[in-house]
Formats: sequence, C-alpha cells, structure tokens
Amino acid sequence: SNTLRIAVLPGDGIGTEVTAATIAVLEPLAKRHGIGLAYEELRAGAFCYRDTGTAMSEETFESAAKADAILLGAMGWPEIRTEDGTEIAPQLDLRFRLNLYAGVRPFRALPGVPVALADPRARDIDLVIVRESTEGLFFSRDRGTVTHDMAEETLRITRGVTEKLARFSFGLAQQRAARRGRQGTVTLVDKANVFRAFAFMRGIFAEVAASYPDVAHGAHYVDAMALDLVRKPWAFDVLPTENMFGDILSDLGAGLIGGMGFAPSADIGDTHAVFQPAHGTAPDIAGTGIANPTATILSAAMMLDWLAGKGAGQAYADAAAELDAAVDAAFASGLRTADIGGQDGTAAAAKAVAARIGSA
Amino acid sequence: SNTLRIAVLPGDGIGTEVTAATIAVLEPLAKRHGIGLAYEELRAGAFCYRDTGTAMSEETFESAAKADAILLGAMGWPEIRTEDGTEIAPQLDLRFRLNLYAGVRPFRALPGVPVALADPRARDIDLVIVRESTEGLFFSRDRGTVTHDMAEETLRITRGVTEKLARFSFGLAQQRAARRGRQGTVTLVDKANVFRAFAFMRGIFAEVAASYPDVAHGAHYVDAMALDLVRKPWAFDVLPTENMFGDILSDLGAGLIGGMGFAPSADIGDTHAVFQPAHGTAPDIAGTGIANPTATILSAAMMLDWLAGKGAGQAYADAAAELDAAVDAAFASGLRTADIGGQDGTAAAAKAVAARIGSA
Ligand SMILES: CC(C)[C@H](C(=O)O)[C@@H](O)C(=O)O
Ligand SMILES: CC(C)[C@H](C(=O)O)[C@@H](O)C(=O)O
Repeated sequence: SNTLRIAVLPGDGIGTEVTAATIAVLEPLAKRHGIGLAYEELRAGAFCYRDTGTAMSEETFESAAKADAILLGAMGWPEIRTEDGTEIAPQLDLRFRLNLYAGVRPFRALPGVPVALADPRARDIDLVIVRESTEGLFFSRDRGTVTHDMAEETLRITRGVTEKLARFSFGLAQQRAARRGRQGTVTLVDKANVFRAFAFMRGIFAEVAASYPDVAHGAHYVDAMALDLVRKPWAFDVLPTENMFGDILSDLGAGLIGGMGFAPSADIGDTHAVFQPAHGTAPDIAGTGIANPTATILSAAMMLDWLAGKGAGQAYADAAAELDAAVDAAFASGLRTADIGGQDGTAAAAKAVAARIGSA
Repeated sequence: SNTLRIAVLPGDGIGTEVTAATIAVLEPLAKRHGIGLAYEELRAGAFCYRDTGTAMSEETFESAAKADAILLGAMGWPEIRTEDGTEIAPQLDLRFRLNLYAGVRPFRALPGVPVALADPRARDIDLVIVRESTEGLFFSRDRGTVTHDMAEETLRITRGVTEKLARFSFGLAQQRAARRGRQGTVTLVDKANVFRAFAFMRGIFAEVAASYPDVAHGAHYVDAMALDLVRKPWAFDVLPTENMFGDILSDLGAGLIGGMGFAPSADIGDTHAVFQPAHGTAPDIAGTGIANPTATILSAAMMLDWLAGKGAGQAYADAAAELDAAVDAAFASGLRTADIGGQDGTAAAAKAVAARIGSA
C-alpha cells in the first residue's frame, strides 16, 4: 500500500522527547496494520529562531504543507521572545496559514488516571472542545498596536469561518453519536450577552443547526461554561468556541482529567491538519526524561483517524482505534507517569503502550 | 453617629430576592454595631428596560452615584435583549461610568460547604481574583462592528488603568498578608506570550511591583491559570487580570468553592464602589424562594469593610468581620441551601445568618 508522508516538527523542550516516544510507538503499530508512514523531521520553534533568526523557514513550511499530515511536539521558550515581548509560536502560523480552523481537543478520563473532581461522575467525562483556531482574538496576533499609554487588539469573527466551524462541530457530534449510541449535542460557547460579535456567531450557529436536526443544539456563555466544566463536565459533548475562549477552556478541561499530559489535539482544516499535544515545552522538566508522552500518542491516534477519513483506508482507522485502546490498557494495568505521581518516564510510558499493541 | 446612604438596586430575577434577604440580615447587624444605614431602593435592569425603554435612567444613575455605596442584586434576562442581540446589563454601565476598575472576587471554602475538587487541600482555597472591570475586551461593549460577513471587537488596555489595577492588587496583597500572617503574592494573569497588549500589561505590573518589595510577584498565562485553578488553587493569593479573563476565571473559582451562590464581589474605584453577588438572575429558580443569598450577604460584608476603609469608622469594620463570621457559623452548624443539595431557602438562610449575629 501507499506510504504516507508525515512531517514531524518536534519543536522545543519536551516537544522533542514526546515526539520521539510517539514515533517509537507508531512503528510497531504501522507494521502490524500494514500501513506505511515515512517521517520527515523538520526544524522550527524558539531555538530555531534563536539560532537561525526565523522560527520556521519558508522551506520548512512548504515541506510541512506538502506532507500528508503534520505531527508537532511543542514550541516556545520563555526566555526567547520577539522584540514586542511575545514568545515564538510557529504552531500558530501553521494554524493561520493552513486555515486549520477546527482545533479539536477531546477530554476523556483514562482508566486508572486520577481525575480532579470529587464527584464520581467525573470518570464519565467525554467531551470535545472545538477551538476555532484562525481568527477570534488571535486574529490580532502580530497586529496589536501599542503606544506609551495604550495597547489594543482586535477580535475578529467571520461568517465564512464560523459556518465551517459550525458544520465541523455538528458533523463531529454526529460521528460521536454514532460511536457512542446516543444523541449528540453541540453547545456553542460565547459571550453573546455582552458582545455583538458573539451574537453574530450565535446567529450563524443557529442557522447551520437547522441542517442537523438529529443533533441537539444550545449555547452557553463562556463564564457559565467555566463554572459548568467544574460542576458537571460529564453533561457536555461538543463545545465549539472562539479561539481565546477555547485556549482557556481546554486547559481547564485538561485539568479535569489528569493534566496537560493527557490532552491531545488536532488542528484541522479542509485540506491540512496538524496533530500536537495541548501542552507546552515544559522548560522545568525538559531534558530530564520524565515528560508524559500520552497526549502526543493520543494526538497521533487522531492523526491516523483523520488520514482514514481522508481516504487512506480502513487500516488507518483500525490502527487509530488500537492505539487508543493500547493507551487505555497501559494505564489500566498500572502505567503511572511522573505528572500523576508515578515513576514511569517518557520512554517507559512509550514502551508500556507499545507492549499493548497486538495484544487485543 | 452618621447615617450612610446605601443605594440598593435589586435588579431582576433572584436579584430582588437575595437583596431583600441581605437587608434583613444587615438590620440586626447595624443595630448591634450602632451603625446607621439608610437604604434607597432604585429600579434598573432588564424588566425596567422592557417597561420604561431604559435599563437605568439618568436619575437612577445620579442617585446611585451620590450614595455612599451601592448594593446590587443581579440584572439581565435572556428573553429581553437589545436590538444587537446582547442582554441588558446596566451593572456594566455602573462599572464603566463610575470607573470601578477593580472587580474584587474572593474565593474561600466555607465550613461545611462541599468543594468540587477531590484533593483535601481544596478546603484551604483562599484567593482573590481582581478583574479589571472598565476596559480590556469589555471596552468594546456597544462598540463592536458587525457587517453581513464579519464582526469585530476591540480589546483595549491603558497604562493609567493598569497602573491603578496593579497598585490596588499589591495593596490588597499587603492587607491580606497582614491579616493572614504570611507573605502576599500577586500573580498577574495574562496572555503575554501571544499578544502585545498583554506584554504591555505585564511590563506595567513589573514596574509597579518594584514599589512593593514585601509582596511576591509573578505572572501566569491565562490558559495555564485555568489549569492551575483546577490543579492547585490553594497555591494562589491575589490574581489581577483583564476583564474578560477575570469574568471566565471567576466563575471557575466559584465552581471550586460550591458555586456562584458563594461568590461575592465588589467593583471598586477611587471614589465609588458597587457590591453584588457574582451570580446572575437565575431565571430557572426566580420566584421560587430557593436562591442562596450567601454571595450577596458576603458582598454586603465587603461593602461594610470598604466603608470602614473610606473613613466610616471602626464599627463598620467590626460589623463586616462579624457578618463574615456569622455566615461561617451558620454553615458550620448545618445551614444547607438548595444549590448545595440542602432544604434551606432564601429566607431561612438569611434567618440562620441573622441568628448568629451577636452570638460571638
Ligand atoms: C503556546 C500558545 C501560543 C498556544 C496557544 O495559545 O494557542 C497554546 O497555549 C495552545 O493552546 O496551543
Ligand atoms: C452579566 C454579565 C454582563 C456580567 C459580566 O460579564 O461582567 C457577569 O457575568 C459578571 O461577571 O458580573
């Protein structure tokens, strides 16, 4: 069968470590499912900026854009900043330039991994935040104006992107409903009580919702959602939202299910997609070999699933499902990474997951 | 002694109920401490808008502005909206027009009230979010532009307001340090890694911090803070932040300590202040008599304390402390409001708190 090209951008800090661990898991998985993955490692990130003057060269961008999928570690480093005081984040450029409007961030409690909430229903958390990732407040990145006395940023919401985000969210809810055997629900998270731009967004979602009569549809103010994610996160399914809101709520979501080490993500557009853990480069533990690679491994499973949806074939979907199951099985049978108080480092975690492949 | 004038704006929905309950508690308290409070009830809110065409008349605004303090219930109603689709929220006008830049939102676990997190340290939560309340994204309220295809809002941060917010936050940390017998810490919550306006804000905080060598000072990205408020909220003290971020994080904070029914707030400026529960009008339970008045009662305690700081005299500070203690004592000895699964309605809760006044 075809070999697919995966552009791998390990990035900075623990980004390189979790990416290496993930590829180590993908190798036996690919073999077992007879799928061909060819990795092309590309350099980008804060140290690349420091060393070369550019965070991601045009050639790198072109190579990544030509690949069948992009797997990214983490990028940025607190001490390496641009002149305006912001950090180096070429992952944002990928989102903008490749029009990856749907930032898919699923949250699920893995067996054996402690959850934050006292309520036992917290083990049933199974929701997905769909963070719009090309506009919203982030439209303003590199566009903010600063004088001595004042700074301004612009939040922009367009009809075109919002329609796509809505269709993506309802489609995702349908897929999840089929998989979970119950009706899907899309709850837009906005601040339509105060801002016209969010009333505009809410109106567009309501229009699109009419084409998905099988999916339940609601809207929730972002502050109320921050509360409800603490009070009853098990009550939610698909949560599309503006870029900045999605950034905040997805870290909250990760906190509920054991931390950023368990939070995969996929930035998906019509033609391209980037898969990366939701966490950062973790300067405090970089180089120590204790980073939890689970979020990256689960992101790779999302990648295989997305490739299957793009026509790569059923073997990719099967591999994705097996990878998810292998992660569950590894934690169910005692894998304990350092971030949840365990002794297992990055390599040990990858090994534990790899050991479950083919055992189902 | 002097009688102070309190403008009371009950507002909509449960706003009227929790305000009445709070005044019922303030009466015996004032008597006991020999303080004179004269209430002037004023009409504003969504139903006022529906009935009169204006959410808060100029006379009402003037009367409120002339009072010594303003006690507000809650305002807004989902079905009553302006033409642009947003809700009626004259409480925002009060914040803007009276320059109430410091939205003080303390979070503390009350004895006997269940907390959300499984970790036992969650009972030690004792932090204050200082939500800037006159600019940030809310600068854009009524200023957003919407066309058929696009909507934009402007986030504005000014040096003047940010300096005031910083001085307020460091001053608050000093006061709390004195009260708690340990060093205070101010942690600015921003998104300086991506936005120039937040790098600007961070720079101003660093300048102001230099004048408060006794207070520890740090900064945290808002997404990381959403995570840490779930992972280790007991580790934080004073958290100043931008308006929209503060709105989101303060609902999260309320979720940690039992819900919005336990979240008081004070919107404080150089000359004026508004005290109100952080919750909304709760259309689902309005009129049923089960709303929890605790957030409003605790807001009234903040009001008395603020009046003391403005020179009203020690009796006001003593009354504030006693009111806080009475709330604690009521919950410690079995008060259970409906929002935490109990049987005690609004009037019963007020009665239980009032019964503790004078018993210390
Ligand atoms: C590192 C940062 C620029 C990035 C973002 O804000 O999008 C991160 O927080 C994320 O969620 O992917
Ligand atoms: C009701 C709403 C306008 C208000 C706000 O967004 O400020 C509320 O959420 C609050 O926190 O006081």
